[in-house]
Amino acid sequence: MAERVFLDWNAGAPLHPEACAALIAALEVVGNPSSVHAEGRAARNLVETAREEVAALVGAAPRNVTFTSGGSEANTLALTPHWQMGRETRPLGRLLVSAIEHPSVLAGGRFPTNAVGFLPVTPHGVVELAALDDRLSVLRADSGDTRPLVSIMHVNNETGVVQPIAAAAERVHAAGGLLHVDAVQSAGRIACEIDVLGADLMTLSGHKIGAPKGVGALVRRDAGLHLADPLVKGGGQERGFRAGTEAVALISAFGAAARAARRDRERNAAAMVVLRDRLEGALKAGSPELVVIGAEAARAPGTSLVALPGLKAETAVIALDLAGFAVSSGSACSSGKVGASHVLAAMGTPAALAASAVRVGLGPTTTEHHIDAFTTAWNTLARGLSREGRGIAA
Amino acid sequence: MAERVFLDWNAGAPLHPEACAALIAALEVVGNPSSVHAEGRAARNLVETAREEVAALVGAAPRNVTFTSGGSEANTLALTPHWQMGRETRPLGRLLVSAIEHPSVLAGGRFPTNAVGFLPVTPHGVVELAALDDRLSVLRADSGDTRPLVSIMHVNNETGVVQPIAAAAERVHAAGGLLHVDAVQSAGRIACEIDVLGADLMTLSGHKIGAPKGVGALVRRDAGLHLADPLVKGGGQERGFRAGTEAVALISAFGAAARAARRDRERNAAAMVVLRDRLEGALKAGSPELVVIGAEAARAPGTSLVALPGLKAETAVIALDLAGFAVSSGSACSSGKVGASHVLAAMGTPAALAASAVRVGLGPTTTEHHIDAFTTAWNTLARGLSREGRGIAA
Repeated sequence: MAERVFLDWNAGAPLHPEACAALIAALEVVGNPSSVHAEGRAARNLVETAREEVAALVGAAPRNVTFTSGGSEANTLALTPHWQMGRETRPLGRLLVSAIEHPSVLAGGRFPTNAVGFLPVTPHGVVELAALDDRLSVLRADSGDTRPLVSIMHVNNETGVVQPIAAAAERVHAAGGLLHVDAVQSAGRIACEIDVLGADLMTLSGHKIGAPKGVGALVRRDAGLHLADPLVKGGGQERGFRAGTEAVALISAFGAAARAARRDRERNAAAMVVLRDRLEGALKAGSPELVVIGAEAARAPGTSLVALPGLKAETAVIALDLAGFAVSSGSACSSGKVGASHVLAAMGTPAALAASAVRVGLGPTTTEHHIDAFTTAWNTLARGLSREGRGIAA
Repeated sequence: MAERVFLDWNAGAPLHPEACAALIAALEVVGNPSSVHAEGRAARNLVETAREEVAALVGAAPRNVTFTSGGSEANTLALTPHWQMGRETRPLGRLLVSAIEHPSVLAGGRFPTNAVGFLPVTPHGVVELAALDDRLSVLRADSGDTRPLVSIMHVNNETGVVQPIAAAAERVHAAGGLLHVDAVQSAGRIACEIDVLGADLMTLSGHKIGAPKGVGALVRRDAGLHLADPLVKGGGQERGFRAGTEAVALISAFGAAARAARRDRERNAAAMVVLRDRLEGALKAGSPELVVIGAEAARAPGTSLVALPGLKAETAVIALDLAGFAVSSGSACSSGKVGASHVLAAMGTPAALAASAVRVGLGPTTTEHHIDAFTTAWNTLARGLSREGRGIAA
């Protein structure tokens, strides 16, 4: 098989060499981190070292990091009415989530369905802060004894569009609420300091930054934030926030990936922006009618959602796969599902254009060669489409 | 450091070489199993192959296996009132669990606290079926419109005592209820066929059979058993039973460990029984007053809970650790907690004896040499205690 070009980093990054090395080293540690003997203490040390590294990636205190099995679990854990803080006794009676969230946030966690509201986004894919203001003031007027939990992702997984988190945090806090931020697509790609963003809760995923699939974290900004009902119940692991024997090897790899992501972020981001611009420039040169969705908004580097009118995304993904390129139509979690992207629907993207949207996800090891090979293959595909469109048979 | 002797296999087995090989091979697979491209399909294949192997370990259909992040998550997922089967519309309004269950079962999952009842055990650590009969008939008399979910572990993690699952299943089914079996400590050690046991739901843990920590499964006996509210919500992974990107490498390792455990179980078990008897014989020869807890009941091979009156278990574990042996006092999940074992308390073991109980857990790679070295170290410790007891200063 010819060399494959992997351009689906939003679905999951290839294993980072440093994460791989940490994983392999951790496999030799036999113990259960809850055991008191030397083997147990060695496993505990690996977990706690990784906790420091993951915390550092977002500027949090290590003790505020709860390891989970991934982003979906962290999101489900975060979305509960039962967070408690100091002497605040008003329940979190209402959940507001943006309409472009990951399915694990849209599902609403442990809130009853009728307690969940949705925030619209602009045609460029940015959450509408004015709508947030409206919802918060209605909530304040309607039920002064209820506080809101608001969940807005930092970077959208389909478009790469960056959301106005700090501005949202100010509003949510002024209303006495808590803000949860799904930072799965932003950590390691753009600055993602929990204090600067003002997120009270933040979700991270290991496999988006080069750890293996199956590990993530929920990070609290303030150690005073308590949870009466963890999602996974049992032993007292993770300070009571999450029972179950820790996935030591995955957690250790997550720590190493976080360390590398923090160290290399700015250099990687700068390189990815150049490559993304090269990609989009070449595709537009081949097909001037090509639309880069979300391009008018601030975007994280590395994600390009492109739509060529008339090109069916699913057909393109399969043709490009056969040609050696891994890209996707929509998010991996939605793959195989029939129906348009809920993100593009929320943006008001016309259905025909949405059906053409192909996500190209770049990463730190993506090269000019990869981009040039991809754009050549894409433009060949586009020319074939154009001939078809003009009725020229092959 | 001198060679360590690991005798805490109940807390977690060392990584099996075949699981390690599968894990390493899986690390090279880049894709997200939900992606449609070649990388995604390769990841999907690994997950589905592992599903077949885990299913085969307990004689289940592969499609009835839901992968989780471990035993605690599988137990929490299992314990919900919302299982649905065919046209049966009566809710599972009551949860009955044995008093010797793992903390993740004792926590009651998603049942309200006042809907959870506990089943007593005999002084030998066996669930009392007569008590189960009583509870089921009271339930039938009190509330004919409610069905019970009953959860009884197959093998206890502290004593190794085997529970009468098939007999319990008959009773539970006659009452229109469902039986969940935590088989974390039995699968791979004794016969554990889901059909023979009659378990409707069965929990498995990877790291108890040689996979890395962080993976497990909930197995259904009947594909008709549906769940309206998964624990981790979001994408449609795992047939809707569990959202989140699959931990491909861990799952692949779990599959390999399950295959090895199934293939080698009888040979391993026969060897472990011989070693356990050698262990208990040598300890009793050194201290005739030593008590083997649960010895009068049927026990799975490999677990020996021994109590030497006057020996403080925590002191013994530390002394043995310094001497190069990893054993535990109680389960790993309870390590570090103050207070007596809930298992021994439920058995009515006198508190003084319970405080002396040390668990020695053997595994397939345990040798005569390990056992002899351990019993020599233990008997030295016991002699020192005996001298102290007689007032002979060191």
